[in-house]
Amino acid sequence: MIEHTAELLGIKNERRIIFLVMDGLGDLPFGSRLSTPLEAARKPNIDALLPQSTTGLFDPVEPGITPGSGPGHLGLFGYDPRNHLIGRGVLEALGIDFPLQDDDVAARFNFCTLDSNRRITDRRAGRISDDENRRLVDKINEQLAMSNDVEVIVRSVSEHRGLVVLRGHTLGGRVSDTDPQTLGGRPLPAGALDAESRTTAEWLNRFVTEIERILHDETKANGVLLRGIDKRPPIPKIANRFPINPGAIATYPMYRGIARLVGMHVFDPPGDIPATMAAPKSVPKEYDYLFVHIKYTDKAGEDGDYDRKVSVIEEVDRHLPELMKAKPDVLVITGDHSTPAILKAHSWHPVPALVYSPGTVLPDGSKTFGERACQVGGLGRLPMRHLLPIALAHAQKLAKFGA
Amino acid sequence: MIEHTAELLGIKNERRIIFLVMDGLGDLPFGSRLSTPLEAARKPNIDALLPQSTTGLFDPVEPGITPGSGPGHLGLFGYDPRNHLIGRGVLEALGIDFPLQDDDVAARFNFCTLDSNRRITDRRAGRISDDENRRLVDKINEQLAMSNDVEVIVRSVSEHRGLVVLRGHTLGGRVSDTDPQTLGGRPLPAGALDAESRTTAEWLNRFVTEIERILHDETKANGVLLRGIDKRPPIPKIANRFPINPGAIATYPMYRGIARLVGMHVFDPPGDIPATMAAPKSVPKEYDYLFVHIKYTDKAGEDGDYDRKVSVIEEVDRHLPELMKAKPDVLVITGDHSTPAILKAHSWHPVPALVYSPGTVLPDGSKTFGERACQVGGLGRLPMRHLLPIALAHAQKLAKFGA
Repeated sequence: MIEHTAELLGIKNERRIIFLVMDGLGDLPFGSRLSTPLEAARKPNIDALLPQSTTGLFDPVEPGITPGSGPGHLGLFGYDPRNHLIGRGVLEALGIDFPLQDDDVAARFNFCTLDSNRRITDRRAGRISDDENRRLVDKINEQLAMSNDVEVIVRSVSEHRGLVVLRGHTLGGRVSDTDPQTLGGRPLPAGALDAESRTTAEWLNRFVTEIERILHDETKANGVLLRGIDKRPPIPKIANRFPINPGAIATYPMYRGIARLVGMHVFDPPGDIPATMAAPKSVPKEYDYLFVHIKYTDKAGEDGDYDRKVSVIEEVDRHLPELMKAKPDVLVITGDHSTPAILKAHSWHPVPALVYSPGTVLPDGSKTFGERACQVGGLGRLPMRHLLPIALAHAQKLAKFGA
Repeated sequence: MIEHTAELLGIKNERRIIFLVMDGLGDLPFGSRLSTPLEAARKPNIDALLPQSTTGLFDPVEPGITPGSGPGHLGLFGYDPRNHLIGRGVLEALGIDFPLQDDDVAARFNFCTLDSNRRITDRRAGRISDDENRRLVDKINEQLAMSNDVEVIVRSVSEHRGLVVLRGHTLGGRVSDTDPQTLGGRPLPAGALDAESRTTAEWLNRFVTEIERILHDETKANGVLLRGIDKRPPIPKIANRFPINPGAIATYPMYRGIARLVGMHVFDPPGDIPATMAAPKSVPKEYDYLFVHIKYTDKAGEDGDYDRKVSVIEEVDRHLPELMKAKPDVLVITGDHSTPAILKAHSWHPVPALVYSPGTVLPDGSKTFGERACQVGGLGRLPMRHLLPIALAHAQKLAKFGA
């Protein structure tokens, strides 16, 4: 299926495109702070790009729709997120380099705290440490007694997060979450959403019971909540759709996972912001598309920490000269969605984006890079899936359409 | 069929959305008046919403397309008007509470004045009174002699407007208008637009002949012109698509009809502008979506009366505090289409819209609400069918899409 005319028009060349993605970049004013974090941040290096840039606002899915991380990134990578739904379990699996097979069913789990009546008192088990998580997963793997009919694989992710994979050739992947997303109630039973998934739901419910048996003597983490139960979706490789040889620089598992899902080469996790911004200059020239992911903007937004979000943006800006050493012909700076600090959550607000491309861009007159400057930017307001084709055009990687 | 991703994501809550729709709101400068009526109107109450609002321009159907009242309102209600065509006859029938059945064919008619050569000298028969209309319809119903094969039902609407319904189980609904929309010519014959509608066209032509026989001794209203011949379309209920319990406050039949067609509860007609603006505050809380319709802006536009349109907007503004007593969490102020006074007709110009939502909106910096201020507003330019999902997002009635 062709989702964008650009797929018909690819031309290979050596020009390099970098997408610098500050996760959850878009934001709102917060109380007496009348600017957004992006507007408030001192970012002389980013603003210095504007005389050779055009800007705009982008909707990850559709106006009014709040995207999860999967749809947000698929939009950035030029996919229509409505056509490619990815379960959270699948993303977690890819993010820890778990070799997910086509028929595997994956679920993300959170360790949680249950009281003596099985009521949830902490959905994240006090955000236990990675070490504690590994100890619990080892204990589970030693004692888990399920069946020979299905293989059950349990893996640590980080803090309170884990992955469970069911491997068995006849398992459907459409099962509802057991996480009620609130405190005080009991975990929900996993429910089959189609006939093929009834056995899957039964196995998952048995898994939950087993875990509670194994962890009954734990004080913090004595239960699990399952989310995003799904199989790996058939997504066409990005390099088969667009004329790029793509590489990804990201530290956090989920983003590495989604980059891998669309067929990008994923480089070693760089770590902090300075390391992330310095990484591209060492990437071999043949990678003519780099996805560079900064998680910390989103984390600050999720934590409701406006000032930290400002600081993260300023830190990214300070290290922009390092990124520029990777010599992008086209640099896109944007987010995968908005995460307003005042809402402490992903939101539906369109995402500001800047396309820097000396010589091929019509500079739109913006004096700063911010949500409200982007309102009147040269790119207008567009669905996010158009942003990569626009970057490809500026990198002259697209032929003329029609005679 | 899903027309918007929002349909998959509904969350019920008590937050209230009000759509204040000034019919035909969008306009143009007029001669030496360089502002539009909306720009020229003194509207301190509306403008006071702007520090907590975002604005933009909306295309009811597509750029360049002039909508009728049906498509204009379907866009406002979150439908793609290209997928749901409603004949004017159907709207008129719904507007007078006529119990239209699935196989009925409905047509709006205007009483008109014909000269001795059957040439049209007045397409509205001098805009006769409602009483006169009822006298004529009684006379028709007494004397109409058609056939036993088809039931012909004639009803008064208002002034020169009436409704005719053909009831018979094998009638097609695709028949062309008999109103030539100009003076000096004869009424056109009704023409079948598909094979199933040949009998319908024949019956309607026989009906027109009958009417002229019955009214031959009338001086003003001695003929009829048929428009919008159609059957009731299968439109999904708005409450089945979006997480709202919808109510409509409208005085004019057509708008009540279309609200009913999408399944809204329609409250008693309030009457004038003060009554319309005061009505929402008495609506029970469980109606968390209110469509409030003001017709008079469109009438002024249709009459080419720029100054009256300014006055209507100013009157709506004066009564805005009454509307606010209904405590909307999200207030949308917009129109269903543009009706520029200089054109005296509906037009294709995009419609200005304001979304007021304290705390969840990025104020876009607009200082006044007007067409040209909306050009650079935070919402950009979008198809009208996105406006309701945007309002739902601001009312936090939509869940996140994807993991």
